[in-house]
Amino acid sequence: MPWQDVPWPERGWHDAWLPDAAFRPLGSRRVLVALGPDAGPVGDTVVAELRRATGLFGGSLTVSTAGAPVEADAVAEHDVTLVVAVRAPHVGGTSTRSGQPTADPNAHLVGPASGGAPDGDASAPLGEESFVLGRRDGRAWVVAGGHRGLLYGLHALVREGERAWAPGTDHVLDLPVSSLRMLDHWDNVDVHPVMGQVERGYAGGSLWFEAGRVRDDLTRVGAYARLLGSVGVNAVSLNNVNVGRTEARLLTDGLADVARLADLFRPHGIRTFLSVSFAAPMRLGGLPTADPLDPDVQRWWAEAAERVWATVPDFGGFVVKADSEGQPGPFAYGRDHADGANLLARAVAPHGGTVFWRAFVYNHTQDWRDRSTDRARAAYDHFHPLDGRFDDNVVVQVKHGPIDFQTREAVSPVIGALPRTRVAVELQVTQEYTGHQKHVCYLGPWWSEILRFPLTEDAGRTVADIVTGLPGGPDGTVHGPEVADLRAGGIVAVSNVGDDAFWTGHPLAQANLYAFARLAWNPEADPVEVLDEWIGLTFPDADPRVRTTLHRLMDGSWRTYEAYTAPLGVGFMVTPGSHYGPSVDGYEYSPWGTYHFADRDGIGVDRTRATGTGYTGQYEAPWRDVYEDAATCPDELLLFFHHVPWEHRLRSGTTVAQHVYDSRADAVDEVERTVAAWAEVAGLVDDGLHARVTERLAEQLRSATEWRDQVRTYVFRTSGVPDASGRPIY
Amino acid sequence: MPWQDVPWPERGWHDAWLPDAAFRPLGSRRVLVALGPDAGPVGDTVVAELRRATGLFGGSLTVSTAGAPVEADAVAEHDVTLVVAVRAPHVGGTSTRSGQPTADPNAHLVGPASGGAPDGDASAPLGEESFVLGRRDGRAWVVAGGHRGLLYGLHALVREGERAWAPGTDHVLDLPVSSLRMLDHWDNVDVHPVMGQVERGYAGGSLWFEAGRVRDDLTRVGAYARLLGSVGVNAVSLNNVNVGRTEARLLTDGLADVARLADLFRPHGIRTFLSVSFAAPMRLGGLPTADPLDPDVQRWWAEAAERVWATVPDFGGFVVKADSEGQPGPFAYGRDHADGANLLARAVAPHGGTVFWRAFVYNHTQDWRDRSTDRARAAYDHFHPLDGRFDDNVVVQVKHGPIDFQTREAVSPVIGALPRTRVAVELQVTQEYTGHQKHVCYLGPWWSEILRFPLTEDAGRTVADIVTGLPGGPDGTVHGPEVADLRAGGIVAVSNVGDDAFWTGHPLAQANLYAFARLAWNPEADPVEVLDEWIGLTFPDADPRVRTTLHRLMDGSWRTYEAYTAPLGVGFMVTPGSHYGPSVDGYEYSPWGTYHFADRDGIGVDRTRATGTGYTGQYEAPWRDVYEDAATCPDELLLFFHHVPWEHRLRSGTTVAQHVYDSRADAVDEVERTVAAWAEVAGLVDDGLHARVTERLAEQLRSATEWRDQVRTYVFRTSGVPDASGRPIY
Repeated sequence: MPWQDVPWPERGWHDAWLPDAAFRPLGSRRVLVALGPDAGPVGDTVVAELRRATGLFGGSLTVSTAGAPVEADAVAEHDVTLVVAVRAPHVGGTSTRSGQPTADPNAHLVGPASGGAPDGDASAPLGEESFVLGRRDGRAWVVAGGHRGLLYGLHALVREGERAWAPGTDHVLDLPVSSLRMLDHWDNVDVHPVMGQVERGYAGGSLWFEAGRVRDDLTRVGAYARLLGSVGVNAVSLNNVNVGRTEARLLTDGLADVARLADLFRPHGIRTFLSVSFAAPMRLGGLPTADPLDPDVQRWWAEAAERVWATVPDFGGFVVKADSEGQPGPFAYGRDHADGANLLARAVAPHGGTVFWRAFVYNHTQDWRDRSTDRARAAYDHFHPLDGRFDDNVVVQVKHGPIDFQTREAVSPVIGALPRTRVAVELQVTQEYTGHQKHVCYLGPWWSEILRFPLTEDAGRTVADIVTGLPGGPDGTVHGPEVADLRAGGIVAVSNVGDDAFWTGHPLAQANLYAFARLAWNPEADPVEVLDEWIGLTFPDADPRVRTTLHRLMDGSWRTYEAYTAPLGVGFMVTPGSHYGPSVDGYEYSPWGTYHFADRDGIGVDRTRATGTGYTGQYEAPWRDVYEDAATCPDELLLFFHHVPWEHRLRSGTTVAQHVYDSRADAVDEVERTVAAWAEVAGLVDDGLHARVTERLAEQLRSATEWRDQVRTYVFRTSGVPDASGRPIY
Repeated sequence: MPWQDVPWPERGWHDAWLPDAAFRPLGSRRVLVALGPDAGPVGDTVVAELRRATGLFGGSLTVSTAGAPVEADAVAEHDVTLVVAVRAPHVGGTSTRSGQPTADPNAHLVGPASGGAPDGDASAPLGEESFVLGRRDGRAWVVAGGHRGLLYGLHALVREGERAWAPGTDHVLDLPVSSLRMLDHWDNVDVHPVMGQVERGYAGGSLWFEAGRVRDDLTRVGAYARLLGSVGVNAVSLNNVNVGRTEARLLTDGLADVARLADLFRPHGIRTFLSVSFAAPMRLGGLPTADPLDPDVQRWWAEAAERVWATVPDFGGFVVKADSEGQPGPFAYGRDHADGANLLARAVAPHGGTVFWRAFVYNHTQDWRDRSTDRARAAYDHFHPLDGRFDDNVVVQVKHGPIDFQTREAVSPVIGALPRTRVAVELQVTQEYTGHQKHVCYLGPWWSEILRFPLTEDAGRTVADIVTGLPGGPDGTVHGPEVADLRAGGIVAVSNVGDDAFWTGHPLAQANLYAFARLAWNPEADPVEVLDEWIGLTFPDADPRVRTTLHRLMDGSWRTYEAYTAPLGVGFMVTPGSHYGPSVDGYEYSPWGTYHFADRDGIGVDRTRATGTGYTGQYEAPWRDVYEDAATCPDELLLFFHHVPWEHRLRSGTTVAQHVYDSRADAVDEVERTVAAWAEVAGLVDDGLHARVTERLAEQLRSATEWRDQVRTYVFRTSGVPDASGRPIY
């Protein structure tokens, strides 16, 4: 029996946002699908989805011969037509979701769908991943530029549901703003003695690795790939960026297993990548060096790449963490990171491969006594001088903030500081610092703020503009370099899935995976609307109170989490090692460069040019000045940029100490209310899911209370400032 | 080749305090040894030691037929005579090392050594473990009450060296003050994912367990048993008191391996014990309960004991950690710890077995907000009400302090609070909180303080008196219960050995193992003299500067360690989990009950009756009053008993804050000087040993500097009190 026919609790994994019921509007209709020639496995996936949906819900499916023209009569006989065309239909007044179609090097031409597009002649080139979704007189249609576009159009139809057949006529061109939408998996082959099977994994074991090897039964990987493909993820990296002994061998002995996995991702439009060790020529090849300028090393990588692409012809490339937290890198040989990245880039270039080179390079054995060293400065100091030296198939992958996936930190200036380099932004879905999938923390609003942040000179281009190669500015041409010089890197995130029955440790954390993909597709999307989409798909037949309650729990959950944890952008204050739960001084005397410098007089990190580490100088205007001045610095980043007295008055009007007291307590009150709200939808959602969320909410309330009490008490003990509210302090 | 004939670096383990050269004075002489009947394996050990020594150094050995009288002529023909007798020789004016011979239930009579004792008739009963060591006219002699006494007398001779043959005539009765001198090994069979092969083990893996099983080659265990036997240890427990799944099976499937180990300890006078799980009837027996009042449970334990003693007839008994830090115990069934301990005691009683039941019971999920709960009170509160209810073959094993093996804490009042119970004191050789065998920290002085501490009413009996069943007081009869009511438990410690080439991670930590044994034998011994003994044995042929330097490094090392770590008895301030290195607030908001309550105004734990937790009330006079008043409380325990302002003036005249500043900095200066001193004996000791100590000293200096800077900085940031010395603060 196909796994989809087994109800989810018996099957062992939850439907996530693709339950059968989400396909009912489409599946109950007469469907015509016309593939292009060379439809391949993605085309097969589209047909299979449609066949299953129409089979379940009483509709019908007509599959047109691949590449054959679709006749107008055939269109008229169906409620919905999905067709691959090389050009967008000329329909007049096309509204697009973004200002610029992607230039997808993988787009391939298919025969013109002469009768397929309701409006006749094609007029604009459509990218392989793009599609137009329209409705006309009660009929729906999708015209896609390729089979991946067709798959995405199919799922756009699913998301639309009955609205796709509502009266009226309109259409929308939909295309991915970022041509690369990638999930990095920090899965280990061997169980790491501290980190486990998945580093920072809060959802059980790996979907594909188990105790030293790739699983025999990979059925669930196919189901995962289907989830990702449905929301447009088009790249996955299989293994942890911290590459251990066994993991390194994926590049050689493990290629047959990599191919098995690539075979499962391919039908959903997803290319496969590996994280590799910079020391692989030594570890695997027995060479005496990994020096990027050594010819033997270069030959070793070239031959390794040959073998990889011979085994997986559409392999994506490599992800590299080098000279970072103990991983090997070019510094050992007196080389820089351009030398290192280009070494790998030249090995993979003949195969169309890409190297994602992480910019997370800093001194992790810092002396806490030395206030002049600033970890926030490190990536810029390392990478800014290298701009222009990276090969075209190198993408420098930059964490969204200068520290490390905190609940709140400034946007990394590195993202805007490499105009002659392809840059990707790296987000973290797995919630290392945002509650470990034990706390409800819907991160869509946080990522949306980051992606929409106008980082460059005079706020001309947003983070999303930069990483997707868009010119930015109000009219798309105002600022920045010539369009022809724009480089796209992509939007990457660390995945949050595991072999948990719910995929994620918290069932509601599925929404973060969903939202990442949707925001990578369209960074301008409203994160609450994205959440609403997710709710509609995941709970398609639920009582309307479920939707209301989920918005109640999730819309503001990131801000609530922020409000009971480390205050005002100062970050950390987490338990060392695990990064879960409060430890106000936990990283204060550590080598990790993560300090708050609280004393009886004040708190915060002085990163100004005037009196601090000078980090503000890494920003272009206006941010270099906005952040420099405590009077203009946003409250939520005040302690990230300034050391201030406990009774410093915030822009909000309250003092730092009183803000800590009030916001921590208010946030826990809010968590208490969400616990009560969730209790009221018992019986309205799957019992197993309700129970799991209930259990997680209990832990969230316990943990949030710890945060509240420890942070409030620490501030009181240290500052001596009384809490004007009179709430308990210890 | 016997392992002793392989030089130590090739052999893989160091000679410790039994290098061949230590036997030279004895081995170069004419030796007569007369065993008693039933000499058994301990007698064989004595003969083997003498044979080897005389063989190496040109002496001679005559072994008298076991149990046969020793003729005076034979004595006259030898330089030294060692003989087993049932009564001490009547020699007049015998000086004893302690006021009372031990009443050893295991002592067995041997035939009278008619000519063996230089002074003729025996006049006083000698315990199996006792001996008289004498010299007369250039001859040395040992008369022992049994073969273990003979072994101990032999090693007393070795320690004496040439002094045993010095001119003059005298003799001394030597006997163990504590009849039980036990080492608990916290060795795991399976490698624990966090704790490793040995819990709190800082000397490599276990000597007998390796990766889930007992080693095949146990040669080194025999060498370890020899070391222990030479200093009078007479009991070992093989496995961790935290009993995991595999460890629990030692009691059943693992008995053949236990027997193999017991066979190696037996020739050195050592009985073998196991740590067992209170839940064994459920885990191993498949019973639905472990309720101590359940007949099936009682039967299961009785049968388990039958099997154990059938396999190891001289087996010692069980060690139990129950209802403590997650280990199962009687509380689950509404029973108390007397019920629990007696359950096991009745199972082992028919076999002469003993149950060591740990009093380390406290709430390890305490709420840090709750200042009324005091972990220090817990053991007393649990066990004091049970006094008189424990069977005679139960020993309640009490950690020396009320918290957990801190560098400095008050002596546990529980030790004096169970007059109708056998009590053992538990020390910790392994240095969990005293530098992990990375810091030089000679603990003899600390244990000496503890053992000699006059705990009971009006300071009548010391800790050593209580645990060895001595009446105490100036004349041994002044205070306390009738002598007939006195109960002895013993002196126990957690071992510090592992498969490190030096046995201990720090070569100088061997001295702690040595000192524990010697102080358990004689708690009145001067710990610096004991150290001197150890130096003499371990470095028998070294330049005199080695002795001077080792005293320089070690004599005061515990107080130096105290001076750079947590101040004034407040304890903890260590890195959570590992317990190595500073983390001032690391346990401040934890569930472990280990707080210092520092705020901008002051620091310390109020344990007074007047305003605090009332813990001082668990002590008898005078301590209940001495500790109650900050003016009389010893400085070194001030913060253990009182919360005081930062500028509170100590009895020493300085303030708390200034004391912290000065002592931390002075102590690190002292460490720096010891590093220099050690460098000067390079070439005068074994190179490998010198290198290891040098490496450890470097780490000690690094770590001590961290302690200094973090504690000083924390106090400055929190208190705002300037350091009058002007030394750097951060």
